[in-house]
Amino acid sequence: MKIAIMGFGVVGSGVGEVVTKNQDILVKKCGEPVEIAHILDLRDFPDSDFKCFTKDFNDILSDPEVGVVVETMGGVNPAYDFTKKLLLAGKQVVTSNKELVATHGTELIKIARENNINYLFEASVGGGIPIIRPMYSCLTAGEATDVFGILNGTTNYILTQMFQCGETFENALKAAQQKGYAEADPTADVEGFDTCRKIAILAALAFGKALDCKGISTEGITKITAEDVAYAEKLGYSIKLIGHSTKAEDGIYAAVFPAFIPKNNPLAGINDVFNGIIVKGEDLGDVMFYGRGAGKLPTANAVVADVVDAIKHKNVNIIIKWEEYNASNQSQGESLKYAYYVRFKGVAPSNIPNCKIVAFSDKNDDEFAVLTEEMSQAQLEEFKNSLKNNQALAQMRIVG
Amino acid sequence: MKIAIMGFGVVGSGVGEVVTKNQDILVKKCGEPVEIAHILDLRDFPDSDFKCFTKDFNDILSDPEVGVVVETMGGVNPAYDFTKKLLLAGKQVVTSNKELVATHGTELIKIARENNINYLFEASVGGGIPIIRPMYSCLTAGEATDVFGILNGTTNYILTQMFQCGETFENALKAAQQKGYAEADPTADVEGFDTCRKIAILAALAFGKALDCKGISTEGITKITAEDVAYAEKLGYSIKLIGHSTKAEDGIYAAVFPAFIPKNNPLAGINDVFNGIIVKGEDLGDVMFYGRGAGKLPTANAVVADVVDAIKHKNVNIIIKWEEYNASNQSQGESLKYAYYVRFKGVAPSNIPNCKIVAFSDKNDDEFAVLTEEMSQAQLEEFKNSLKNNQALAQMRIVG
Repeated sequence: MKIAIMGFGVVGSGVGEVVTKNQDILVKKCGEPVEIAHILDLRDFPDSDFKCFTKDFNDILSDPEVGVVVETMGGVNPAYDFTKKLLLAGKQVVTSNKELVATHGTELIKIARENNINYLFEASVGGGIPIIRPMYSCLTAGEATDVFGILNGTTNYILTQMFQCGETFENALKAAQQKGYAEADPTADVEGFDTCRKIAILAALAFGKALDCKGISTEGITKITAEDVAYAEKLGYSIKLIGHSTKAEDGIYAAVFPAFIPKNNPLAGINDVFNGIIVKGEDLGDVMFYGRGAGKLPTANAVVADVVDAIKHKNVNIIIKWEEYNASNQSQGESLKYAYYVRFKGVAPSNIPNCKIVAFSDKNDDEFAVLTEEMSQAQLEEFKNSLKNNQALAQMRIVG
Repeated sequence: MKIAIMGFGVVGSGVGEVVTKNQDILVKKCGEPVEIAHILDLRDFPDSDFKCFTKDFNDILSDPEVGVVVETMGGVNPAYDFTKKLLLAGKQVVTSNKELVATHGTELIKIARENNINYLFEASVGGGIPIIRPMYSCLTAGEATDVFGILNGTTNYILTQMFQCGETFENALKAAQQKGYAEADPTADVEGFDTCRKIAILAALAFGKALDCKGISTEGITKITAEDVAYAEKLGYSIKLIGHSTKAEDGIYAAVFPAFIPKNNPLAGINDVFNGIIVKGEDLGDVMFYGRGAGKLPTANAVVADVVDAIKHKNVNIIIKWEEYNASNQSQGESLKYAYYVRFKGVAPSNIPNCKIVAFSDKNDDEFAVLTEEMSQAQLEEFKNSLKNNQALAQMRIVG
């Protein structure tokens, strides 16, 4: 079986390494050798052991012997155009490109299905953690009711630094950049956009409906302060950036937000660059998948596992429930109730309705925090307004 | 597609329930309806909604329309004989029977392969936690180096009670029996035999070699005392019953033993009846699978996911690397080094070589405990003998 790699960056070159190193295992798994016939990249790699580089996509598209193509280019364009052409030409595509899967997954999965081949994307969420395949091939009989988790290693590293070392957000971000965990422009991570794409993919697998990222309310971690961290510690919580999707009365709901997680929830103990994803279902029991959510070789291994699956399913579409979903049917969560953490300015009134716990700062006697009962978004606004003399400084949902 | 169920106990009747309830989903997933045509059980179920009970195995074997058979009988006989006959007759078999898989998996997987069908066993380890399929279809490219975990819910519940409520082993076992978590005869759980079967299955998937349970050193939790728990707490550890397999210099090694787990390891926080399994690999990164390791519907869901996979792979063998392994090649772990917890009687000598920490009891000044450096089994014996005046009362490995 000849394969091609499009995009020879971190993950793509990792795929080259994994395929070369594990040829014996791959022959056993696939029943035939796996040969890398083309590598598409606009850059030159004069020192590489590979000698099959090309700058012309048509070299791959027109090679009748190439059956599986690895897309590790990232970004929507030109990956979308290339992937579509390959699938229409009957070539299977395997990707780590979460942005493309979240944006055009519905169409690309449909084209693969119509051509009786596969578009596989295990590496698009959770790096080397097996999560995509378990969702479509293990949690298959019952219906999931909830999927939520820590989906971005960079922000989890920053939050861990803020908790364990008392760092401010700005300093923790700098530490993450120095370690190579955060990019020079950290926007996609810290504003939650990366988590948004991943929860869109997980929601599509859990509920069979493709959500539009534009309709997913997305809040990052930039506004979290040392005060919030201190209250969380005091009250027995961690703060984690959560991607969350659930079935609401009025449709499928998804959102990205920093949340208070009780210490006895397994997500609370997931630190540094690790990811953890919990899938809940009425009859499934809760299951959690945990591991390093990124990294060259673990992610490359996930891609190669998909290559093996594609080779083993040459003319068999692996049925993935992932259907179009009208964005207007997407729930905005009005009917969902959460308990909230709210931090207020000023002196706490002696009696606060709908509030379960009031906590005071050790450092600042001009503020306090409360943990509320479960309430809807509208009820939360009402609750905040009811404290006329106290301005709300921060709020987070309590999840888990 | 017609299927049959052999054994209508907790899991088997759960399979009936899940198939009936989720018919719509199954039609979508399989591309055809799934009908339960026969249920084999020696008991009578006059109140059941199902009307297809039989006491004669031949009704299933001779029905040409039955393509997939669910074996939820448990035990080696007659499940082994039935399964073999079915596979030889070209019928796929799906099982939750860990004892049969651990004992005769090699032969049954081989027969399925030779007949281009499948023998699937997702539900045999970890109840509803997807672990078997991720091991053969996700962690496929690189090689695993270690697999270890908490594989038995009953013993984990007992240990949690001992830690959180200060219970003795005997009282915690009684509580587990009252809750229905432990059987009247708890031997298979508390002596580690159940964990032994499960680690044998995981080792076979991780390393491709079938281990003989007889060669797996197996120690249960019956000897753990309140003193051990107190030292663990004091030193920042949990005690968990661990199934562990790794590649040693002299072959594949597997063992079952109670171990000290540092509190910052994710396994330390897995309490009650939950299971957690960590797979390590040089290029894979560590991944952990976590969830309720038992339960009627989660386990039944895992069985039904295998039924779906079997239907989708009617004439395609899903390649599972699981080969015969000469029991004499099985490592006994002589070359492996672990740090140990050892509890001694008497007064601690002022200088103990190869020891990192000495701890004293709050209640009993006639004993002490040490945490050693990493050492082999032989070195541990030497170490214990070197403390001439102190009798070793208990010892456990430190793992994680």
